[in-house]
Amino acid sequence: MDRHFSNRISNVPKSFIREILKVGSDPAVISFAGGLPNKDYFPVKELQAAANLVFQKSGKEALQYTCSEGLLGLRHLISDHYKTKKQVSIDPENILMTTGSQQALDLIGKTFINEGDEILIEEPGYLGAIQAFSLYQPNINTVPLLEDGVDIVEFKKIIAEKKPKFFYTVPNFQNPSGLTYSEEKRKAVAEIIVANDMILVEDDPYGDLRFEGTHKSLFKKLIPDNTIYLGSFSKIISPGLRVGWVAAAAKLMDRILVAKQASDLHSTFLSQMMIYEYLIANDLDAHINKVCKVYNEQRLAMLAAIEEHFPKSVSVTKVEGGLFLWLTLPEGVAAKKLFELAISQKVAFVPGDPFYVGKTNVNTFRLNFSCATKETIDIGIKRLGHVIGSNI
Amino acid sequence: MDRHFSNRISNVPKSFIREILKVGSDPAVISFAGGLPNKDYFPVKELQAAANLVFQKSGKEALQYTCSEGLLGLRHLISDHYKTKKQVSIDPENILMTTGSQQALDLIGKTFINEGDEILIEEPGYLGAIQAFSLYQPNINTVPLLEDGVDIVEFKKIIAEKKPKFFYTVPNFQNPSGLTYSEEKRKAVAEIIVANDMILVEDDPYGDLRFEGTHKSLFKKLIPDNTIYLGSFSKIISPGLRVGWVAAAAKLMDRILVAKQASDLHSTFLSQMMIYEYLIANDLDAHINKVCKVYNEQRLAMLAAIEEHFPKSVSVTKVEGGLFLWLTLPEGVAAKKLFELAISQKVAFVPGDPFYVGKTNVNTFRLNFSCATKETIDIGIKRLGHVIGSNI
Repeated sequence: MDRHFSNRISNVPKSFIREILKVGSDPAVISFAGGLPNKDYFPVKELQAAANLVFQKSGKEALQYTCSEGLLGLRHLISDHYKTKKQVSIDPENILMTTGSQQALDLIGKTFINEGDEILIEEPGYLGAIQAFSLYQPNINTVPLLEDGVDIVEFKKIIAEKKPKFFYTVPNFQNPSGLTYSEEKRKAVAEIIVANDMILVEDDPYGDLRFEGTHKSLFKKLIPDNTIYLGSFSKIISPGLRVGWVAAAAKLMDRILVAKQASDLHSTFLSQMMIYEYLIANDLDAHINKVCKVYNEQRLAMLAAIEEHFPKSVSVTKVEGGLFLWLTLPEGVAAKKLFELAISQKVAFVPGDPFYVGKTNVNTFRLNFSCATKETIDIGIKRLGHVIGSNI
Repeated sequence: MDRHFSNRISNVPKSFIREILKVGSDPAVISFAGGLPNKDYFPVKELQAAANLVFQKSGKEALQYTCSEGLLGLRHLISDHYKTKKQVSIDPENILMTTGSQQALDLIGKTFINEGDEILIEEPGYLGAIQAFSLYQPNINTVPLLEDGVDIVEFKKIIAEKKPKFFYTVPNFQNPSGLTYSEEKRKAVAEIIVANDMILVEDDPYGDLRFEGTHKSLFKKLIPDNTIYLGSFSKIISPGLRVGWVAAAAKLMDRILVAKQASDLHSTFLSQMMIYEYLIANDLDAHINKVCKVYNEQRLAMLAAIEEHFPKSVSVTKVEGGLFLWLTLPEGVAAKKLFELAISQKVAFVPGDPFYVGKTNVNTFRLNFSCATKETIDIGIKRLGHVIGSNI
């Protein structure tokens, strides 16, 4: 029945990450491969209380169909959060609740990409976005990511040459690199986007997980009309509830909403109502601070272990938050090859390959620090250091 | 920024139904326009208990990311249900949990439709499917639906002429017509599908809501390898939880799964675990019987009121279950025009137009009986009969 498949689906390879996570699920393997928040810090009791409150107050409504935009009260709370915490004004009417940020990526693909359209992403880039966009068959252009954001010279050059419809970026604690754009870089990018009448897709699931330094301006603040902003409760409250959102100017939202209706009518309503009640009854900032403290300790433990156990020829990005470190091996060393060896030594990571478009056997890899204890970090990084040291 | 939109999204009109439901939400309007299950019969307490059990037993897991296929235990229960109740064998590995059936329609569009592909649906057909498929820009062919299923002569003719990739059908208590395929019609359709190496998409959200007559064979039983089956808990437990599923042969599922990953990683995990615990602790059949009893009373009340208040020139389909009646006005009378007049008389229905491809001002309309009491049915149908009687 192969003739029945669409071209788009035939072109998308099975998720490489998925295969890696399968290998990493062997309990004997210390895995730094995942990209998950640490479940030990989920507010389980608070969310249970929120669920009970929803059932008591409006059980029937929580279980019924609702509008495609999602719970208005929750969209008001999100709008308030941006106003008070990030000095960004977003009308609740211009916020649409999604099934995690991943769905927002799919909706953007649906709404904006024709086959063969030029789009622009970072290199390395978030693989979930590469996968979601790929299904709409664009030409994906990439611009190298430096320590403080994209390479502006390359950025200008590609835009002049290819005139991409949009630029997709994860400006805070990027997945996979952990890097964050400087204030200057944001302003430079914003200026170029406006000058070229482009859309910027700002994917910001990690923005609140800052351990040090100061928050930078959102693109949604700098160039609100050009920016489609994606937010999520997945990394700060719970991913399993699948509550994310997309915020865009009314004219764009009007069409994104059509894509949402066709995609699944609406996201789980109980999840939205639970998060609403959770936010009313609890101090989200205090919860985020608690999580940041733990993640930061794990980050520092991983950096110390890398310093101790990795060859000096392996470099690591300087990250101020999020879930990931990004490492670069000496030129010519394929991280993918080391992966096989690492698995035999019971330690896992994600080789860089799936974060690139059209490149393989790259010399970079991703380490996740949010889900390991300081003890497993020390043992795992030591094992990995040994594998690297013996094979480069 | 119009130049940024994709062709697919520019071609899809804003949901007509959505606009109708907005008008119908005026509390003074008696609305038969919705397609919702009756929230007064949701098992609210039982689902609250299920939620508490999930939080007690595995709160952290329910709140974490999970695999794209969804909860394996729930897929086993679904598989068991088909084995014991419908004599159909479906491997749990070949079941994928979706965000309601609507998402399954989107995944099918993603996985199978190239721009310009021929596909085939019923006329009238489910508008959510028309909307979902339209985004992938196929040529949608239609085949007339008769009292016992599609017109077989037309069905053969269109398939011979257009060689569509798949045929999409709602064989039980169809939305919008309420009609059900006879056993003979199922066998005839199945034979043609196999002879033409086609896929049949069997959308079956209402199948368990049978008030009289006997259950008919699923296409998934008759031609399992050719059939992609869509099921849902929306009409029998709760739609707001957004738990549906798609079952397909492994070779097809392999690709549908890639589409699912790219679309939203996975559906809400808490919802799936809640339904699992609900099914373990409760008698679903007893619950369905209770709901069927109520809906049937409402159906009978609506039929009686139609008999009393509608002109004899208006005909109604004979339905044995589900949520809808489908009515035909004398030729040349546009249901859409009557809609405006009905609204002014504080009663709402859905004119047939959105259930057709490329036809407008049709003389058919849909009435929903699941959400109205016998009293409001009597008042509303009387009002509607008056509008119709004065304007045809």
